[in-house]
Formats: sequence, structure tokens, C-alpha cells
Amino acid sequence: MDLDGKLGSLVVEIESQLKKYLRSLTFGRSAELREMISYHMGWEDDLGGGKRLRPVLTLLCAGACGGDHARAMPAALGIEFFHNFTLIHDDIQDGSTTRHGHPTVWTRWGVPQAINAGDTLLSIAQQALLGLDATCGSVVAVRAAQELNQVCLRLTRGQYLDMAFEKEEEVELETYLDMIRDKTAELLAFSTGVGGLAAGAGDTVIRQLSVYGENLGMAFQVQDDLLGIWGDPAVTGKSAAGDLLARKKTLPILFGLRESEAFRALWRVENPEPEQVTAMADLLQACGAQAYVRAEAAEFTRQAFDALAELFSGGNADADALKALTEGLLHRQM
Amino acid sequence: MDLDGKLGSLVVEIESQLKKYLRSLTFGRSAELREMISYHMGWEDDLGGGKRLRPVLTLLCAGACGGDHARAMPAALGIEFFHNFTLIHDDIQDGSTTRHGHPTVWTRWGVPQAINAGDTLLSIAQQALLGLDATCGSVVAVRAAQELNQVCLRLTRGQYLDMAFEKEEEVELETYLDMIRDKTAELLAFSTGVGGLAAGAGDTVIRQLSVYGENLGMAFQVQDDLLGIWGDPAVTGKSAAGDLLARKKTLPILFGLRESEAFRALWRVENPEPEQVTAMADLLQACGAQAYVRAEAAEFTRQAFDALAELFSGGNADADALKALTEGLLHRQM
Repeated sequence: MDLDGKLGSLVVEIESQLKKYLRSLTFGRSAELREMISYHMGWEDDLGGGKRLRPVLTLLCAGACGGDHARAMPAALGIEFFHNFTLIHDDIQDGSTTRHGHPTVWTRWGVPQAINAGDTLLSIAQQALLGLDATCGSVVAVRAAQELNQVCLRLTRGQYLDMAFEKEEEVELETYLDMIRDKTAELLAFSTGVGGLAAGAGDTVIRQLSVYGENLGMAFQVQDDLLGIWGDPAVTGKSAAGDLLARKKTLPILFGLRESEAFRALWRVENPEPEQVTAMADLLQACGAQAYVRAEAAEFTRQAFDALAELFSGGNADADALKALTEGLLHRQM
Repeated sequence: MDLDGKLGSLVVEIESQLKKYLRSLTFGRSAELREMISYHMGWEDDLGGGKRLRPVLTLLCAGACGGDHARAMPAALGIEFFHNFTLIHDDIQDGSTTRHGHPTVWTRWGVPQAINAGDTLLSIAQQALLGLDATCGSVVAVRAAQELNQVCLRLTRGQYLDMAFEKEEEVELETYLDMIRDKTAELLAFSTGVGGLAAGAGDTVIRQLSVYGENLGMAFQVQDDLLGIWGDPAVTGKSAAGDLLARKKTLPILFGLRESEAFRALWRVENPEPEQVTAMADLLQACGAQAYVRAEAAEFTRQAFDALAELFSGGNADADALKALTEGLLHRQM
């Protein structure tokens, strides 16, 4: 089977298990709460629910360590539910009215019910992950649950900072990188590490898997910041220089605010004209922001590949798929 | 030591452990997030943080089963943090601007940060509870975590219904009782049951402890509904007929809406005059609402005491304290 076929069938399996898990829970008179979650997951009218990247990584890491997917499945489900809890609350916090082109949960059901739907999904996530008790025993289940909650604490720390940054004039580049590590990369590190844990790998391997996941997450996010300004709208599906329009303080923009007086002046303009937006992107390129961010992305990418290469020098089908998937993710076209 | 002294020293111990737990967590640049939690817990300027009823119940139940408090402490801490997560989100959902006479978290830090503070507290709660791994082993820790997340799911189901009720003309009394069971009583049932679990009690005892906790929770909530209309403001610290003014669809009001045409008519008045509020309370009494709710409270109270009596016919100091505490809680004066 080729890579796309292999990943495709993994996603189908994960999707089917996620649905089965949600169906197995009793909602009684609160059936609409299940509908809210089902809608967010993309299951109403088959809206399509995202790439399920994190649980795919968990299963592939488990397989690459010689474990089987079924034993790691509770962790995979827990992580995907967890990720979606963060999205529901994120959309409220950011005031985002659409996701994947559809109204967000809070837009459709109001903020109070959407907060509650997110809380529900967080408890479902924990519960699903604790299913590791049945497949791997209680020691593994407790450790995984402890790690998930450490990740959750770091994620909320990152989320705190991300929201706090909106009100700050300047943010240090290192502080920004810490924030995306907490908010995004730690969950990736857990997704990969727990695959090894479920497969019975030793601590050294698990740690190395986490290093891979963390760097993958960092590389992916930093690349996203690049694409948010210089990405081709035809490829990314987002508007050109979208992050400049949305006034998101991403890595290249923070670099520009630090290095370029001309950029700072234009950034202060409230509703910039299209030519001013183009000028800002050009200034970022001229002051070295693009080169800096490219170098950062390249460094995280290198570290992710190094970790992978060290881990699976021999390799098996899942390790090969993991490498190919990582290639695909980190060599996205601008 | 008398009961007040015993309970007082338990609360002091719990309070000190809660603070120590929060201090042990790393917040880095997000130190303000810790402040938000600390503020909500009542620890800034010693605002006083509530009765800590749930963790007191956990420790007393553990002690009454012959276990020691230290082994059950992780559960007690987890439950109190969990309860406070629900309060932070509840205040946003209800639009409550004050709690215990102080601005709520969302009033002070805004809704997005308050949602995040609640999420943080939920992960701290889970983490604290999983500390049972160190005191009671992984099998107990996994079971307790699974039960906490089942409670969380039921609580969010109850919360969904509670918010949905606001928009409904009439709500069946049974549906209302189901809602408060999910939203309030289940957490009490867990608080008592997990004390037995941590003490190494058998399943029959744990189940009976949960029956006690659930009925205690139901009795307490139904009594609260009584006091919300007929409570003496000088004792309750709330305004007379407060629930009628706040238009909360509590048990006596739902009974009145079903039974009394005259009450229904007055209930529809948008901003009732004081004499109309008094008239509503009188109509509720006349149509049998007060008697019905009193009978319900008495029945739940009886079941709570029966469960306790069956459990600890012999008794020890903690079992005696539990009985005395239950007396105090359920024989509140109107």
C-alpha cells in the first residue's frame, strides 16, 4: 500500500473509533450536547473533521516501536478529543466565527453552551485515554493521564501568554517560541511519546519520540507563520499576507517589529490599504525576518529528522510511513 | 476536640495542602494565571475560600472506613480543585459578576482568560487526584480518575440541561431532579465514595458511601430551593424570595407553574412589584409547593441518614463527625 493509502486507512479507522466512543456515552435528555460535539468533530452532514494528525502519529509511533495499533488506540482517541476541546474553547476566546468554512460551536449554540461542550470533550478525552488501563494496564494508564494533564497545564499557560501578547507592544522572540512550544508542540510531543509508552518502549526511546514530536510541532508552527505571510493563497487556502491583515503577532512580524522602524510605522496603521500590506511583507523580507524564520523552521525540521533517524535506523512499515509523513508535513510548498 | 474544632482543623489542613499543591506547579511567564486561580480560591488578601465541604467529606469517609487522611488527601485536593473549575465556568455561563461579595474571575480578567483559568484548574484537579498513585497505587488512581471523569460528564450534562431550562416554558419535576442529581449530587457521591476507595474499603461499602453522598447532595440542593423562597434573609444572607426575583426555575417554582394558574399569571409579569413577589410566595404555599418540596427534602435526608447509619453502626471519631456534620447540614434553619 502506498503512503496515502496507508494514512487514509488509519484515518478511517481512527474516525470510526472516535464515533463509536462518543456513541457509547449516555447523554439522556442532554442529547443536544452530543450533537454539538458531533458537529464540531465534523460528523454532521459529513463536513470532514480535519487531518487527525495527532492520533495518526500516536499509532505510527506505537507501530514503529513494534507495538500494535489497538493497544495504543485509547491514547490516540483521547488525544484527538483533547485537541478538539482546545479548538472549541479557542474559537470562543479568539471570537472566531467560522472553522473549516462552517460556523463555530459558540456561533451556533452561544458562548455558555460552547464552554460546556468544551468541558464535556475534555472529560471525554481523559476518559478515552484512561482506556489504556484495559489495553496496557494501570501503570501505563496513570502515567499517560499524568502526562496529558501536564500537557494541558502547559497548553493553558501558552494560551494565557498568547492572549496576553495581544495587548503587548513588543514580545521577545524567545518568549514567543516558548509560547508556541507550550501551546502547540507539547501536545505533539505527547502524541508521539505515548505511542512508544503504549508499545512498551523504554524511557530513552519514549524521550526521543517526544523530542521528535516537539520539534515536528515547532517546525510546523514556525512554517505556518511563514505561510501566513508569504504562502501562496492558491495552496494554503488562506488570503495572502493573512497574518498581517489579522494583526497576528507571529514570529516574522515580531522580528520585523524589533528590527525595522519602517515596518513598525506601517504596523501601527489601523486599516492598512492593500499596497501597505504588500509593503509590510516586503519590509519583513528586506529586514531579514523571512530569512530568520526560514532558518528557525529549518533547524527544528533538522532536529525532528535527526531524532527520527536515530530512533528507527532499521525501520519497519510504520517507521517508514512516519518518515514519509514527516517529509510531507515539513516540506510544504509556499 | 468538639465537632467545630475537628472540622476547623481539617479545613486548615486541606487549605494548606491546596495552596502547597498550586505553589508546586511551574507557571513561568504565565504567573498571572496562578494569581487568577489563587484569587478564585480566596487566597488573595485572605478573602476566605468557602467551606471545603467536599474534601472534608472525602477525608472523614476515609477515616470512618479506618483509613488515614493522608492517603485520601490527593482525592480531596483533586475534588476541591475540580469543584472550583466548575464555579469559574459557571460564573461565566450565568453572567454572575460577584461571588462571596467579590468580583468573579471573568469580571476581573475577561471571559477568554477566565475560560482558560477554568481549563487550567480542571487539569490541575485531574493531576492532583492522580496523586493517589503514590498513596494508594495505580489501580486505585485509575479507578478514581475514571470515576471523576464520569462525574464530569454527568455534571456537564446537568449544566447543559440547567441552561436549556431557562428557555423552556415548563420543566417536569422529575427532569429537574435529574438535572440537580447530575449537576450537584454526583460530585458529592464521588467525594464520599472515593474516601472509602482510598481507605481500601470493599465495593459494597463504597457504593453505600456514594448513596449517602448522593442523597446528601440532593437533600442539600432541594433545601436550598426551599430557602431560596422562604429562607430568612438574616440567616441565609440572601434576599427574601430571592429565587422568585432572579426568576430561577427551582423545584417549588416548577411545582407552582404546574399546579397554580394564579401563580403562572404572576410569574409572567416582567418586573414584579414587592407585593407581587410576596403574593407569589403565598400562592406557592397555598398550592402545596412548599409542602411538596419539604417532603422531598425530608425523604432525601432520611435516605442519607439511613445510609450512614447502616455504614457505621459501630462508629469511630470520624464516623461520629460525619453524622454530626450531616445533621448540621440537613437541619439548617429557615
